[in-house]
Amino acid sequence: MRKLGVQAVEDIARGAAVMASGGGGDPYLGMVVARQTVEEFGPIELLELGEVPDGARVAVSMGLGAPTVLVEKVPRGTEPEFALEVLENACGYRFDALLPSEAGGWNSLHPMLPAARRGLPLLDGDGMGRAFPELQMVTWSVFGQSAAPIGVADERGNTMLIDTRDNKRAEDLCRGATVAMGGNISLACYGMTGAQARTHSVAGTYTLCEEVGALLRYARTNRVDAYDRIMERLGAVELFCGKVRDVERRTEGGFARGIATLEGLDAYRGSVLAMEFQNEFLMARRDGVPVCTAPDLIAAFDAETLTPITGEALKYGCRALIVGIPCAPQWRTAEGLAVAGPAAFGYAGVPYVPVEQR
Amino acid sequence: MRKLGVQAVEDIARGAAVMASGGGGDPYLGMVVARQTVEEFGPIELLELGEVPDGARVAVSMGLGAPTVLVEKVPRGTEPEFALEVLENACGYRFDALLPSEAGGWNSLHPMLPAARRGLPLLDGDGMGRAFPELQMVTWSVFGQSAAPIGVADERGNTMLIDTRDNKRAEDLCRGATVAMGGNISLACYGMTGAQARTHSVAGTYTLCEEVGALLRYARTNRVDAYDRIMERLGAVELFCGKVRDVERRTEGGFARGIATLEGLDAYRGSVLAMEFQNEFLMARRDGVPVCTAPDLIAAFDAETLTPITGEALKYGCRALIVGIPCAPQWRTAEGLAVAGPAAFGYAGVPYVPVEQR
Repeated sequence: MRKLGVQAVEDIARGAAVMASGGGGDPYLGMVVARQTVEEFGPIELLELGEVPDGARVAVSMGLGAPTVLVEKVPRGTEPEFALEVLENACGYRFDALLPSEAGGWNSLHPMLPAARRGLPLLDGDGMGRAFPELQMVTWSVFGQSAAPIGVADERGNTMLIDTRDNKRAEDLCRGATVAMGGNISLACYGMTGAQARTHSVAGTYTLCEEVGALLRYARTNRVDAYDRIMERLGAVELFCGKVRDVERRTEGGFARGIATLEGLDAYRGSVLAMEFQNEFLMARRDGVPVCTAPDLIAAFDAETLTPITGEALKYGCRALIVGIPCAPQWRTAEGLAVAGPAAFGYAGVPYVPVEQR
Repeated sequence: MRKLGVQAVEDIARGAAVMASGGGGDPYLGMVVARQTVEEFGPIELLELGEVPDGARVAVSMGLGAPTVLVEKVPRGTEPEFALEVLENACGYRFDALLPSEAGGWNSLHPMLPAARRGLPLLDGDGMGRAFPELQMVTWSVFGQSAAPIGVADERGNTMLIDTRDNKRAEDLCRGATVAMGGNISLACYGMTGAQARTHSVAGTYTLCEEVGALLRYARTNRVDAYDRIMERLGAVELFCGKVRDVERRTEGGFARGIATLEGLDAYRGSVLAMEFQNEFLMARRDGVPVCTAPDLIAAFDAETLTPITGEALKYGCRALIVGIPCAPQWRTAEGLAVAGPAAFGYAGVPYVPVEQR
C-alpha cells in the first residue's frame, strides 16, 4: 500500500496518455481534475493487486464516449460517484475498492474521484494495460466476467442502470446512452471480488504510468535521455517521425473516428505513415504496409518536447514521433486476440504480428 | 368494471388504429397478440377512471420505437412484464393497475399483456386520447408528472432503469435505448396514484376505441352507413379522398419519418394532399394549405373497405380516405399546445386552428 499525492497523480495522467495509444481522454484535463481532487480530499490509497482481500467487493469506475467531446463537455466531477451509487443501489451493497478500466489521461483519473471522496482504495491494475475504445475490450471479458449490472450517470444527474448478460450488448447499450447523454458519461461496472480482480486484471498499471509520467517530466530538461529511457522501459519500437499532413476526423456513434496522415522527416523522409483511430490509434501503415496494429500500442509524442499527443489533439503541422509498444501478454493469447485483435476492429485480412517482430 | 374478452380486444385494436392518427403500431399484430393473451389468461378487467381507489399504484405500460420496425421485429410478449418488474424493483413496491400511454393498434394492447399475466386491472383512459411520437407528449406531462423512473426491456431480456427529472430528457434517453435495442422496446413509466390517474388522464379511451372498432367490423357488410356513423361518433371532418402517389419514408433516430403524397379522386380530383409523419400523421396540407395539424388527429382509411391504414402500411396505389378528428380537449389548452401543438413538431409558422373550424 502506498499513497498517491499531487505529484503522483500528475505523473499518472501524463504517463497514462502514452499508454492510452492516443485515447483515454485529455491528459491536461486529467491532471487538473486529479490535482483538485487530491488537494481537496487528500492523498489516495493505492493497493497492489496482491494486497486486496479475496472477498473484497471491487468495481470499475470509468468514462465512456468520444475524447473529442470530453474537451468541450468538461466533467462536473460528481458523475463517477453517481454512477457508483446507481450500481450500489442495484447490488444492495457498497464497494470496498475501485479499479480503472484502462490507462488514459482521463480514464486513469476517473476512479480517483469517487475513491478520494469516499476514502476508498484504488487497485494498481486495470483491464487493458492500455486503452481500447469499447467496453467489452477488457481482460475481464476474456475471463468471462459480466460488465453488467452497469450504473450510468451524466453531469446533470440523469442516471441509468443497464442489465444484460452479453458484454458486447452492454457496450451497444452504453454507447446509445452516451450519445443520448451528450457524448461522454460515467459508468460503474464489472463488479467482481478481490480474488477475481487479482487474477483477471493487468497488474501494475498505475505504477507503470507513473514511471512513464516521471520520465516525461524529466524530458523537459533532458529530452534525448528521457526518450531512450522511455523506449527501454516500455520495450518500444520507433515507427516514424513526421509532420501531420492531414487528419480526417468525425465524431460519430459515440466514438472519435478517423485517419491521420504524416509525411516523413529526417530518417523517414519520403515515407508516409497513416494511422487509423477509433478513439485509440489502432493501425499504423508505413507506405501502405502495417507496422503496428492493435492490441499493440501506437503512441504519438511531440517530436520537440516529448509531450504525448492524444488522437483529438493531433492536427495539421504537428511534428510527431510515433512509437509501437508491446501490449500486455494477456492480449496475445487466442482469447485476447478474439476480443481486441485486428479482426475485432474490422481488419480481417491483417494477421497480428507482435510489433517488436515486424 | 367490466371484462374485456376476445371480441372486445379485437375491436379495440382496430378502433385504436383509427384513433392513433397513423401511429401506435400495427393493428393486425395487436389483434393477434391480444387474442392470444386473452385466450391464454382469460378476460381482462377494465375499470373506469372513477372506479380506481385514490391510493392505488398505477403505472403506464407502453412500447416505444418506430412502427416500421415493429412489423419485422415482432414482440416476444414478455418484455412488457420485464419492464414493469424493473420499475417495481426500483420503486420497492408492486403496481395495482395499468394504463396505456396512447391509443394505438399495438400500444393499446401493450398493457394488456402484463395485466392479463398478472391479473391486474386496466384503467379506461390514456395519456393522449390518440397517439403521439414522443414520451413526454402526454397529458400527465402537461400536469407536471415525472415519466421517470422508467423500466426498459427488450425481447432478449436486456433491461435498463432510467432516471431523470426532465420528461423530454427521458424521451431522449429512452429513444437512445430504443435505437441500441433494435428499434422497438417496452417501457413501464409514469408511476402515479389512482387519484392522479383519474384527474390527469384522457377518460374512456378503451371504450371509444372499442366502439369505433365495432363500427369498422360493421363496415364489412355496410360500408356507407358505418362511415357515416364513425364520422358522427368522432365529430370528424373529411379532408380528402385520393390515391397514394408517393411515400418518402425513412426510419431514423428511432422514429419512422416521412411524407405521403396523394392525388385526389372523385370530389377531390385535381387536388393534392401531402401528409407529413413522425410515427403519427402530424400535418396534412391540401394544395399547400394546412387542413389539419397536431394535436388534432389525421386518420387514413382504405377507401373501399374502411380498414384503417397506419403510416407504415401506406404505399403507392392505396386509395385512401383521409379524415380529421378533433383531439381531446386537454390538448387545446395553452399548456397542451406547448407540449403537442404544431410548434412542438417544428411547424413554428403554422398556428393551431381546430380542424372543425378550418
